[in-house]
Amino acid sequence: MTEEGWIRRALAAKRDGAPLAAETWTRLVAGYLNGAVDEAQMAALAMACTIRGMAPEEIAALTAAMVHSGDVLDFPTGRTVVDKHSSGGVGDAVSLVVVPLVAACGVPVAKLSGRALGHTGGTLDKLEAIPGLRTDLEPAVFRAQVERVGCAIAAQGPRLVPADKQLYALRDRTGSVPSPGLIAASIVSKKIAGGAGAIVYDVKLGGAAFLRDANDALGLAQMLVDLSGRFGRRASALVTAMDEPLATNVGTAVEAIEARDFLREGGSTPNQRFAQLVRAVALEMLQVGGVDPGVAAERFDRALASGAAYEMFVALVVAQGGDRRAFEGLAALPAGAPALAERDGFVAAIDGVAIGEAARDLVAASGSRAGIRIIGTVGTAVRRGEPLAEIRGAGDATAIARAFAIAAEPPEPVRLIQATVRDAEPRAASKGASE
Amino acid sequence: MTEEGWIRRALAAKRDGAPLAAETWTRLVAGYLNGAVDEAQMAALAMACTIRGMAPEEIAALTAAMVHSGDVLDFPTGRTVVDKHSSGGVGDAVSLVVVPLVAACGVPVAKLSGRALGHTGGTLDKLEAIPGLRTDLEPAVFRAQVERVGCAIAAQGPRLVPADKQLYALRDRTGSVPSPGLIAASIVSKKIAGGAGAIVYDVKLGGAAFLRDANDALGLAQMLVDLSGRFGRRASALVTAMDEPLATNVGTAVEAIEARDFLREGGSTPNQRFAQLVRAVALEMLQVGGVDPGVAAERFDRALASGAAYEMFVALVVAQGGDRRAFEGLAALPAGAPALAERDGFVAAIDGVAIGEAARDLVAASGSRAGIRIIGTVGTAVRRGEPLAEIRGAGDATAIARAFAIAAEPPEPVRLIQATVRDAEPRAASKGASE
Repeated sequence: MTEEGWIRRALAAKRDGAPLAAETWTRLVAGYLNGAVDEAQMAALAMACTIRGMAPEEIAALTAAMVHSGDVLDFPTGRTVVDKHSSGGVGDAVSLVVVPLVAACGVPVAKLSGRALGHTGGTLDKLEAIPGLRTDLEPAVFRAQVERVGCAIAAQGPRLVPADKQLYALRDRTGSVPSPGLIAASIVSKKIAGGAGAIVYDVKLGGAAFLRDANDALGLAQMLVDLSGRFGRRASALVTAMDEPLATNVGTAVEAIEARDFLREGGSTPNQRFAQLVRAVALEMLQVGGVDPGVAAERFDRALASGAAYEMFVALVVAQGGDRRAFEGLAALPAGAPALAERDGFVAAIDGVAIGEAARDLVAASGSRAGIRIIGTVGTAVRRGEPLAEIRGAGDATAIARAFAIAAEPPEPVRLIQATVRDAEPRAASKGASE
Repeated sequence: MTEEGWIRRALAAKRDGAPLAAETWTRLVAGYLNGAVDEAQMAALAMACTIRGMAPEEIAALTAAMVHSGDVLDFPTGRTVVDKHSSGGVGDAVSLVVVPLVAACGVPVAKLSGRALGHTGGTLDKLEAIPGLRTDLEPAVFRAQVERVGCAIAAQGPRLVPADKQLYALRDRTGSVPSPGLIAASIVSKKIAGGAGAIVYDVKLGGAAFLRDANDALGLAQMLVDLSGRFGRRASALVTAMDEPLATNVGTAVEAIEARDFLREGGSTPNQRFAQLVRAVALEMLQVGGVDPGVAAERFDRALASGAAYEMFVALVVAQGGDRRAFEGLAALPAGAPALAERDGFVAAIDGVAIGEAARDLVAASGSRAGIRIIGTVGTAVRRGEPLAEIRGAGDATAIARAFAIAAEPPEPVRLIQATVRDAEPRAASKGASE
């Protein structure tokens, strides 16, 4: 069998709707990395996967092959190390809050994060807005911090799942991004390679998310949980609304400040949607991390109220090179011209994509302490000339005001947490539980 | 709209099953040639077309774009110039016979041909086995010969449909060869660019053809006729069986010799299947070329019986640089060890792929006068030790014998001409008819 022959047969089989064997997926990923499978062949394969779909066994085989395309981290602590993933949103500062919060509850958290993509923010960019803080941790440093401090947030280094970066860039320009199987393999391979023993996924759904169909989102949530289970990882997935920005502040430092203040104030915030999602995600993380559901809520409340969660955030910042004093004193730029309502009514919708892009542009123009503070959340009654948002930095308030749709009647409320998917038969996690 | 944006939208639309606009196909072909659309993007698009199919309007738009990717020949003679295309077979020497034969009936023939592909032979390779003969005719020379002699057979030069060569090579290695729409666009664009005013297609079906499903073959035949009609070309398509070799001799020069002798003998041959296909193809060429069906058969018989067809073949050979004496005296290598039947019975089937590959290897090893002469055609009663085929050149007779399946009972005969598709409402051909 020539090298070429098996690639042609694989392409023909997938084109005709037949599943590929696990060993074929292994060869495809290895071949893609060493050049035996070229970009055009992989683009055709990805397109066929997107149209024809992938069997669960294929997704698992691809995920395993991608995990083994690079280094694999390991946490030999005897305790389940938890990670958390969001499919990307606007004002999604939840990771900055739940990572220290869950760690303060006694479950170690090792979070690998990404950069901003399109209109969505990136946890790394928000963290690095804290003076001195680094996220490019070597694997050994990352692991040691999780063991010593209880949590860490690091960039996925180039040696972790190198196949993913290459494949994602290819899919992005060849029309095969919206393949649930390829998406799931991309997400889960990074979590497995990062050493997570249990994982909580936050699948965003709505106008400012990458998924806009409820069935697609629920299908992906189920797939992520099932796929994680095939690797012996306990997992939960939430499907959550992503239309209006989640945090009150959208930007980089301004989101880190909001997360800091949320923890410092013991969870007290006027933004009830943000608080609700923090609680839901954290409780899922505690559960997959092995905490008895009967005590998880109590631990959560205590970690917040006692200040332990806040101290854990400070410990994380300091461990990663951040300056405690600079962190505690970090402040947003002063508010400039507000975005004003042009008529009386109710905020019916906020264009999260427009807000995300405007915040990105503000940060690019005026530095990390720039951003947007949302005042007129969805459902708020406003009068003409009242502020809808404060602009921090050099931006066009009128353009930002246009992201707010004002209607005569209040909108139907959108449920924040649309669905929760848990593994049906909790498997033994790959590491011993924390209790 | 960025350059990139429209490509992404086109890929997404085709992926999701929506047809692309004609202007998008124009941009895609132009972009592919100038590099704006890269190999990976085109491979993904071709895969999506193969799985999702293409609307007739899309195929027509792609064909037009491909035609205009290079030079377009024109025959300003006021008479319909006919071309003929075969989708590739083993021992398919029909073109060498019908081109001069139809020309001798008064219908000019301008045939653009290809090389051998895989196990199938190429008309150019067979012609070039005639000493001195050239097929790399410049467009002006090709056109002048058709006008002066009445027919010509030339290689498709690099300036004719350059997009096709590039796209075919890409499809070949990325799994999108079996797309009826892409196949039809590839075939028809070359005929239109070559200046054909009317076309006959011979779609091969069977174990030694590229198509093995009767519905696929019939669908392609219909598509070729319809697509040609959209460009104002009269066309017919035959679907013909391609399991056992068609001519008695398989090779290069040996097929040219068989064609020569067929014409020299006025159509007298023991190979009735070959004679049947020659007659069917030639009569279709006469019909699309504008000859009244009531007189076509009579002209065909007269051109053969009078020697006019043979003289036309000689004229073609001489016009293209071949030596008349060398052509008339051309002989195959002497027969070597025969391939023998290993048991008594009937020849139930001949593996055309194996014969085609063995003939190709014989020519590579022993020169153009090597080849295989079939003795035990399908249905022939044989006794153990009797010859099934003669081998000319250095080859393994035992291996070739294995291409013949011997059974106790005679096989069901396979109809040679499985279907004929003609344009329902004959359109006016783009050039005036020949009568």
